[in-house]
Amino acid sequence: MGRGYFISFEGLDGAGKTTQMEMLERWLEQQGLAYVRTREPGGTPLGSEIRHLLFQRPDLTITPLAEAFLFQADRAQHFETLILPALAEGKVVVSDRCFDSSIAYQGAAQGVGTELVAQLSRIATQGHTPDLTIFLDLAPTLVQARTSLSAGKREEQSRFDRASEHFHRKLRQAFLTLAQASPQRIKVIDAAQTPEQVHQNIIALVEPLFKA
Amino acid sequence: MGRGYFISFEGLDGAGKTTQMEMLERWLEQQGLAYVRTREPGGTPLGSEIRHLLFQRPDLTITPLAEAFLFQADRAQHFETLILPALAEGKVVVSDRCFDSSIAYQGAAQGVGTELVAQLSRIATQGHTPDLTIFLDLAPTLVQARTSLSAGKREEQSRFDRASEHFHRKLRQAFLTLAQASPQRIKVIDAAQTPEQVHQNIIALVEPLFKA
Repeated sequence: MGRGYFISFEGLDGAGKTTQMEMLERWLEQQGLAYVRTREPGGTPLGSEIRHLLFQRPDLTITPLAEAFLFQADRAQHFETLILPALAEGKVVVSDRCFDSSIAYQGAAQGVGTELVAQLSRIATQGHTPDLTIFLDLAPTLVQARTSLSAGKREEQSRFDRASEHFHRKLRQAFLTLAQASPQRIKVIDAAQTPEQVHQNIIALVEPLFKA
Repeated sequence: MGRGYFISFEGLDGAGKTTQMEMLERWLEQQGLAYVRTREPGGTPLGSEIRHLLFQRPDLTITPLAEAFLFQADRAQHFETLILPALAEGKVVVSDRCFDSSIAYQGAAQGVGTELVAQLSRIATQGHTPDLTIFLDLAPTLVQARTSLSAGKREEQSRFDRASEHFHRKLRQAFLTLAQASPQRIKVIDAAQTPEQVHQNIIALVEPLFKA
């Protein structure tokens, strides 16, 4: 995995990923740690094109299985050309989503199958995983309240935002199941707390790793 | 697989796929058989977007593994929304390339691995295969002569046409290996013959199927 450190953020839209990634970045800067911020999909030039197809082309029909493959194409490019090289340089990589989202969204909520999507993800990542995955957990009712307040910023999420509270419940359950299966890697943080409280929870997880 | 009949054409660029597909279509029309002509990649609206990324964006870096996933996204959409419904309606589907090309191009010639690409293809096709695959076999030296004669028509193939005779030899060997492994499905036809001779070889394979 190289000498760097790979942290992914997961959570339903509205759970506060962007805010927490920015607060973590300021902390990393204060520690003098070199980092790269990235995202899935869209962390590479190819990924930006794939993201555009997925989120900004509501005219395009995309089956759940085709969508699952598109996310893996983004991921294969992302790992090989950005994440693995940055880790080899000793950098901290902070990614807005990684394969847990594919397992939850396409695998569980859209019915492609969690084991199948996990298998495709292992191929795309060449077997690599984040060192730490932070799941910002928020009740689906709160997710909907937050996303409707900031709808203007979220036009990209058209494909998934149409989703119902039922869809959000399936997503959350999928993330919690993943966290139970990988308790060392995936940490669940209560995102209903204040941003500063959430940030302190995250630093409590991250700080020991860089001291060690 | 439905009541229809699925025929795929494979071969290196320049082997005469387009000519032979057109001649087969005229024959199918004469028999009064309903058919759909399609291609991989690009048989659906999503597929057209993927094809554009693969063949008309030389500015985009695409790793072989990411490319393999893009072809499978095209294929998943193609099977679910076009091929399987057309077969269910009893139509003959004639496709310019199918998963054998992925196995030969990305799997063998680009190094992703033939078994891995075959596995991804089985997922994308939901386990379906063509009823008949016609491999138009041409020596790599003849392929290069034919494609250089018609370079103006082939600007789309930029990603693969840069390939050397060595690349073409690997491709051909991969197709021949696939044909040996699936002799009932994949038929090898000598594409160095005249177009009319090749067509007669193809009709000799196809005609008994519709008589039965």
